[in-house]
Amino acid sequence: MADPRFFRVAGPFSLGQLADIAGAMLSKAADPDRLITDVAPIGTAGPSELGFLDNSRYLPALEASQAGACIIDPRYAPRAPETMDLLLTDAPYNGYAKVAQAFYPAAEIAGDIHGTAIVDPSARIGEGTRLGPYVVVAPRVKIGARCRIAAQVVIEEGVVIGDDTEIGPGASLSHCLVGNRCLLHPGVRVGNRGFGFSLDPEGYRDVPQIGRAIIEDDVEIGANSTIDRGSGPDTVVGAGSKIDNLVQIGHNVQIGRACVLVAQSGVAGSTILGDRVMLAAQAGVAGHLTLGQGARVAAKSGVMRDVAPKQTVCGIPAIPIKRFFRLVSIWHRQLKS
Amino acid sequence: MADPRFFRVAGPFSLGQLADIAGAMLSKAADPDRLITDVAPIGTAGPSELGFLDNSRYLPALEASQAGACIIDPRYAPRAPETMDLLLTDAPYNGYAKVAQAFYPAAEIAGDIHGTAIVDPSARIGEGTRLGPYVVVAPRVKIGARCRIAAQVVIEEGVVIGDDTEIGPGASLSHCLVGNRCLLHPGVRVGNRGFGFSLDPEGYRDVPQIGRAIIEDDVEIGANSTIDRGSGPDTVVGAGSKIDNLVQIGHNVQIGRACVLVAQSGVAGSTILGDRVMLAAQAGVAGHLTLGQGARVAAKSGVMRDVAPKQTVCGIPAIPIKRFFRLVSIWHRQLKS
Amino acid sequence: MADPRFFRVAGPFSLGQLADIAGAMLSKAADPDRLITDVAPIGTAGPSELGFLDNSRYLPALEASQAGACIIDPRYAPRAPETMDLLLTDAPYNGYAKVAQAFYPAAEIAGDIHGTAIVDPSARIGEGTRLGPYVVVAPRVKIGARCRIAAQVVIEEGVVIGDDTEIGPGASLSHCLVGNRCLLHPGVRVGNRGFGFSLDPEGYRDVPQIGRAIIEDDVEIGANSTIDRGSGPDTVVGAGSKIDNLVQIGHNVQIGRACVLVAQSGVAGSTILGDRVMLAAQAGVAGHLTLGQGARVAAKSGVMRDVAPKQTVCGIPAIPIKRFFRLVSIWHRQLKS
Repeated sequence: MADPRFFRVAGPFSLGQLADIAGAMLSKAADPDRLITDVAPIGTAGPSELGFLDNSRYLPALEASQAGACIIDPRYAPRAPETMDLLLTDAPYNGYAKVAQAFYPAAEIAGDIHGTAIVDPSARIGEGTRLGPYVVVAPRVKIGARCRIAAQVVIEEGVVIGDDTEIGPGASLSHCLVGNRCLLHPGVRVGNRGFGFSLDPEGYRDVPQIGRAIIEDDVEIGANSTIDRGSGPDTVVGAGSKIDNLVQIGHNVQIGRACVLVAQSGVAGSTILGDRVMLAAQAGVAGHLTLGQGARVAAKSGVMRDVAPKQTVCGIPAIPIKRFFRLVSIWHRQLKS
Repeated sequence: MADPRFFRVAGPFSLGQLADIAGAMLSKAADPDRLITDVAPIGTAGPSELGFLDNSRYLPALEASQAGACIIDPRYAPRAPETMDLLLTDAPYNGYAKVAQAFYPAAEIAGDIHGTAIVDPSARIGEGTRLGPYVVVAPRVKIGARCRIAAQVVIEEGVVIGDDTEIGPGASLSHCLVGNRCLLHPGVRVGNRGFGFSLDPEGYRDVPQIGRAIIEDDVEIGANSTIDRGSGPDTVVGAGSKIDNLVQIGHNVQIGRACVLVAQSGVAGSTILGDRVMLAAQAGVAGHLTLGQGARVAAKSGVMRDVAPKQTVCGIPAIPIKRFFRLVSIWHRQLKS
Repeated sequence: MADPRFFRVAGPFSLGQLADIAGAMLSKAADPDRLITDVAPIGTAGPSELGFLDNSRYLPALEASQAGACIIDPRYAPRAPETMDLLLTDAPYNGYAKVAQAFYPAAEIAGDIHGTAIVDPSARIGEGTRLGPYVVVAPRVKIGARCRIAAQVVIEEGVVIGDDTEIGPGASLSHCLVGNRCLLHPGVRVGNRGFGFSLDPEGYRDVPQIGRAIIEDDVEIGANSTIDRGSGPDTVVGAGSKIDNLVQIGHNVQIGRACVLVAQSGVAGSTILGDRVMLAAQAGVAGHLTLGQGARVAAKSGVMRDVAPKQTVCGIPAIPIKRFFRLVSIWHRQLKS
């Protein structure tokens, strides 16, 4: 059971309800009226709880599990204990996500402005929006309805934020437009001056960075990640994209829709990622490149050239992943000889 | 045009004025009295706007451009549309920097101390310095004149900051001396306890970190970057150096003058970088090394040995870059055979 | 001498006292009653000061040193100037740590709650705990005795913190339990929503992250590092572990006791590190792996497979370090031919 200090569980739900929610089929022997009280990891779930299996590494945990029920791909069903009821689906993780959202719905937050929040009179705050303690909202900012702005967030002049967006403690935003339903984690920095300067006899000369950072709808940005504003063009993070912790996005970068950038990855200035591009952890992409729709970059890789749509690349410098692993096996052969 | 919610444009300026500012020569057909209203990216600039071209990747954008004028290297001039006036210089990016600074001069900020800033009575704040909301200034801090300290910055005991330095929201400084005209971005952490401990039968024993972090004049430090203080010797960032976002500088590191450390790079303890050393993105340098003046480290490289002055290294472990690319071509040959 | 603006030196101590503190043996000619006023780097220490030597790179500095005394391994003793008194031990860095702690004991901090700290009435704060300016403590939080919570820390609902723990400026904690004697540096983010979502016809669907982050006793977490909470299981950082700056710990990760994670390293979700595992700087470990007790990962390496206890791995993908360096020498041979 999730720690009640942090989470409030809804339910119980019947197996039949849960199968509907998950878009899954109940196994034959299951009683659709049986009540399930919670979700839990398959290794620790008890007889009234529901687990899920999405990764074959955890088959031994499934076999030893006491869980009352499990959301599972039909091909793994034979490995489940006989007494376990099964919710069969070929997308068990998505089924689990739906069920877990039913057990743990987002908390309703009262829309109030804390007495210590400083809001410039020229700023506009939408209905139902919550501003936490010590939030600072500068002149001409617009924040939509039902946003949750946590303690000590700083929103600088002219920033526009849509509806239903959540911002974690200590984040700061400047020179940016943020869409609806975004989630910005603690310590996120959006709209910073980009790293732009020219060589000059007297040293480096800063190039004014006069673009914006545009964060479209449904974007998530992880803790302490940094998104610089454009130098003239805008920096853009496309709708539905997911950015993990400690990620760096340089100025003028254009990230398409539904991209995934895993922790500690980075994209250098003016590079364009098509829709659904994925950068695994600690990957880096050089500046002024284009990665086509659905391209993927393996963890720790360094991309120095354009990547074709749907291509997966790996290595430093990154090459098509099959070639990379062929190279690795050549190395292993060389080590043996 | 830059978004007026965030930027105020000056001007207009005549082509003749702009050529003077840029240190460029006007193309023959150009009318020096023609007025230019703004700078803009070459791909989107209109007939009254000025673009620049600094990278041959953007020649197609130049050819299709509607820009009234362009700052450009003479060798690319033949590629410009005939109707476009040209400002010819062999340093077009630096010319653009100067012109953009003319159109977008730094905003004047009133020097006031926000009513919620907490300033210890023993601290000294110079004339014209602005302290934003919820700034905390500890005992015996000294801040020079005309500084801009944004909301929620924390400046701990004894810290000294020069004149005309700017610090972004949520940054924190301790055990450090910061020079004049520095720019510290949001979330920067300077003067943290270094990562120093010894093995001990009872566990790790913290070694007191009794040095400082010295940030010399004209240094820029990017968002959420971390600079540890020295363990006994000081950590030093030399004058004019540029540090990007999410960079890590370990204790006792000495960074020379005018170095450039690109995003997510890191330098381990006690390493010395000479003047004008450049670390590209996600590069790392091991501890106790010396990189000579003008040395360069390619993106994602890992430096395990000293690097000679002006040498460029690449790879993990890093080797001279020509050797690295020779190695890459050997690999590609092996893949073919 | 350490800068008195930041540090207060205790002492003086006699050589005899210092030898006792360090667990070292005095060299024959040394006068145990001679007074030493401070510690200092061996290169800059004066006749009344004590240095240490722990790395043979600094032997030239030793030979030229004016230090009155030095903590040193007996094998390097012949390299010391004749006039220098020696504290001989085969663990000179640990000896130095003890002596430096004697000269620079932790400052006593008055346990007061700043007038601007916002503490929910349902929160419990232990005796002697200091809350700095603008700290925010949410409902049902429990903080133990003698903690030092710096300015602008945000502690969200239900969080529990033990005794004698220190948290730097601007850090934020949610959904976590933190032990005794921990040290969380500025800007640390603990308990963030993990990076968990499933593919769904309508886009990515967030998977509720209903686990916690458990930070056991004596853990250090470096500036701007991020520790996500579990998705169901907890994320755990074992007792005595040391985490450097800008490190990323994904959801459900289990870090054993006395592990060391150097700057900018990262561990992906659900991976298990045994006790005393070490990740060098910028290393990364993929998800769902197990690294055995005492395993080590070299800097910048990328671990894609389980690592056996006490094994050291290197490279991308990481292989046993001897094999990696054999591979490097094969490459060097290929470059010559």
